[in-house]
Amino acid sequence: MREVAGKRQGGGSPCAACKLLRRRCAEDCVFAPYFPADQPHKFASVHKVFGASNVNKLLQELPVQHRSDAGATLVYEANARVRDPLYGCVGAISSLQQQVDALQTQLAIAQAYR
Amino acid sequence: MREVAGKRQGGGSPCAACKLLRRRCAEDCVFAPYFPADQPHKFASVHKVFGASNVNKLLQELPVQHRSDAGATLVYEANARVRDPLYGCVGAISSLQQQVDALQTQLAIAQAYR
Repeated sequence: MREVAGKRQGGGSPCAACKLLRRRCAEDCVFAPYFPADQPHKFASVHKVFGASNVNKLLQELPVQHRSDAGATLVYEANARVRDPLYGCVGAISSLQQQVDALQTQLAIAQAYR
Repeated sequence: MREVAGKRQGGGSPCAACKLLRRRCAEDCVFAPYFPADQPHKFASVHKVFGASNVNKLLQELPVQHRSDAGATLVYEANARVRDPLYGCVGAISSLQQQVDALQTQLAIAQAYR
């Protein structure tokens, strides 16, 4: 079979990553399981923030059973950075940390008056 | 003055980014204010996780007065991903979210018994 860029080897459609990168989507494509063709925005975000080659390297360095979680957290992080280029995920961390501090103070007060 | 790769134009030493990338550090280098030569690990992390060109683009797209915060949050995020390639920053978010939930429950109980 002749391989064509943007076609999944063996028939099916290419994953979202190979489609965006306009490359042949091999049977063992490292992106395909985590970046399906019907959710192109996910790969678009990680590509914009981390770059395809860094995402590829990061996934390859992890055991297969952990790659799905890593893909999901990369998408989460990338979306946060696209939404808030200044603070990204760190904005959520800092706001949650403030919530924890406030709740601890409230709890100490509530317990003191029991 | 002849410009040499890895030398800061005008004399001084190149910033950590230009040193790692082995390029001339111009007077108006976008990295220099946020990645000083004496903290090479900061740029090494963001370069590994985001890639120098993505960091450059992100900083350039922000007003100058916000770039220092953006640089710091990128370093924080990159260090988290280097430490924990699976969850990165998202690990901290999920653990803080659990803390918030637990504290809210404890507070509700403490308030009910007042």
